[in-house]
Amino acid sequence: MEKVKKIRGGDVRTASRLIRNLEDGMIEARSTIKHIFPLTGRAHVIGLTGSPGAGKSTLVDGLVESFRKKEKTVGVLAVDPTSPFTGGAILGDRIRMQRHAEDPGVFVRSLATRGALGGLAKAVGDAIHILDVMGKDKVIVETVGTGQQEVDIINHSHTVLVVLIPGMGDEIQAIKAGIMEIADIFVINKADREGSSKLRREIMAMLDMAPPETFAAGWRPPIIRVENAFEPDGFGKSLEELSATIEKHYQHLVQHNLIGSRVRRKAVVELNEAIRNSVLEPVLNRLVQNGEIEGMIQKLINKETDPYTLAEDVARRYLKECSG
Amino acid sequence: MEKVKKIRGGDVRTASRLIRNLEDGMIEARSTIKHIFPLTGRAHVIGLTGSPGAGKSTLVDGLVESFRKKEKTVGVLAVDPTSPFTGGAILGDRIRMQRHAEDPGVFVRSLATRGALGGLAKAVGDAIHILDVMGKDKVIVETVGTGQQEVDIINHSHTVLVVLIPGMGDEIQAIKAGIMEIADIFVINKADREGSSKLRREIMAMLDMAPPETFAAGWRPPIIRVENAFEPDGFGKSLEELSATIEKHYQHLVQHNLIGSRVRRKAVVELNEAIRNSVLEPVLNRLVQNGEIEGMIQKLINKETDPYTLAEDVARRYLKECSG
Repeated sequence: MEKVKKIRGGDVRTASRLIRNLEDGMIEARSTIKHIFPLTGRAHVIGLTGSPGAGKSTLVDGLVESFRKKEKTVGVLAVDPTSPFTGGAILGDRIRMQRHAEDPGVFVRSLATRGALGGLAKAVGDAIHILDVMGKDKVIVETVGTGQQEVDIINHSHTVLVVLIPGMGDEIQAIKAGIMEIADIFVINKADREGSSKLRREIMAMLDMAPPETFAAGWRPPIIRVENAFEPDGFGKSLEELSATIEKHYQHLVQHNLIGSRVRRKAVVELNEAIRNSVLEPVLNRLVQNGEIEGMIQKLINKETDPYTLAEDVARRYLKECSG
Repeated sequence: MEKVKKIRGGDVRTASRLIRNLEDGMIEARSTIKHIFPLTGRAHVIGLTGSPGAGKSTLVDGLVESFRKKEKTVGVLAVDPTSPFTGGAILGDRIRMQRHAEDPGVFVRSLATRGALGGLAKAVGDAIHILDVMGKDKVIVETVGTGQQEVDIINHSHTVLVVLIPGMGDEIQAIKAGIMEIADIFVINKADREGSSKLRREIMAMLDMAPPETFAAGWRPPIIRVENAFEPDGFGKSLEELSATIEKHYQHLVQHNLIGSRVRRKAVVELNEAIRNSVLEPVLNRLVQNGEIEGMIQKLINKETDPYTLAEDVARRYLKECSG
């Protein structure tokens, strides 16, 4: 396939167009991914998540620089929330990344959530495949937030960084609940702020509570403190430590044959998403096209029936033998 | 149905048990909901969302008190994130609500996310129905976070409150993108903090950018400042203003025949969730039971095929005529 060949050759325009088409849910793009999928598995995928204001983008920027110094090529996927009000990614064109714009060893793309359509995790998974096949050594996926969607996105990674900042109150720990379990490395960013030691103690306490089997082959997530970005020396030094720890985690996965379990986790997520799409989409499309869905909504509004009864009826009519 | 009769009579134990069973996804509980659904539609459902640390719980507590003064009965559903590490709702038993514990006019339940199973929005929707049928005048749904799940949950409400606090940085506005559009009332909590006026200006600017049709029948979301809870007089006064604004919004919906469109929005969400469940669940169950899913995962790990091809095959085998 011509397109696949171009992407393997590192063609930025072809890759960008394909990612955009995936985001838009174009069926045609999927068939390209079918050809790309078997070629994947070379890149080290690094997921980075944390709450708004945690300084994730500055961290990513620093990591890119650190990897480039070691002559690794880098792909960055930034998952941005979008607003129907303003149209398009609010966080803009990742202006801070512009200093890498002239570097052919760095490829940066933003993926937008486009309202509430879901399926973003799938698009991200496919975009990772593309960057992988382009030959990027390191693929960094940056995502904001704490929902199930973010957990799904981050599940595509080999190494997961959870970024926290001091002084966000106790509730911040609670909201992180779903994310905490998938952390391979904790980053305390803006560590020169008050409350940094307290936050460190809290993470330690949480890790102490975890059952031992949580830590695959004895990898207890280290906690890396990153200094204020406005003190260039401190930032650079802690970034090097972080980047070395990321490398160490990858070596740990390789040495203990754990890459396989990460690959498996990713496969499960991808299969789930693909089945959800291919099974649900045609049913919903059919219900919309033949106007049935409108009648169902009316019945619900008039309280003539309930959602469960309607849905069970849909399953009976659209599913083969397994609907029992 | 005996159970339904008890719930209509306001029986707290029956209602609690049913909510717990819904949370656990018990099929039997669904059949009770089928009987409850036609009896719903009396309660005014108020959704309240905002980021961690925004002081939502204190607000809810204050609103309960304010509604009680007006002799309204109140139900509260608090959606809590849970951690597999600690097991159970981290935010605990909503201790601050204990001062309402002796009041039979107030019913408080926490719903937990239980890891990453999804389906929470559906359980919340059903729990709202139960509180509605119990005869609660006001049902407050409190949720933390910003993901699609929270938008789904909040879509069950007539009146949506988005709670913000000053001084959270610019990125906080971006993450709220999906939530902003569904706000009926903005609350600036902890409004005595620095940055309160700036935040107010930012919300105003965002509303100015919105196309006029965003505001149903001319309801431009008001911005209510709530003073520090530790200054009891200020807090009480702003809470009364907030509670009056909530009432005003409900009257606006009634006067402009907009209750119908909220009911429709809720019906669409509920139908979607029910179909997703009833169509996907049996297919996934079958694939797990006959061991097929494991074979598929292995094929993906070995790069013998790709997720799309597998999923299309599943659709072909399990869907009736509409799989084309």
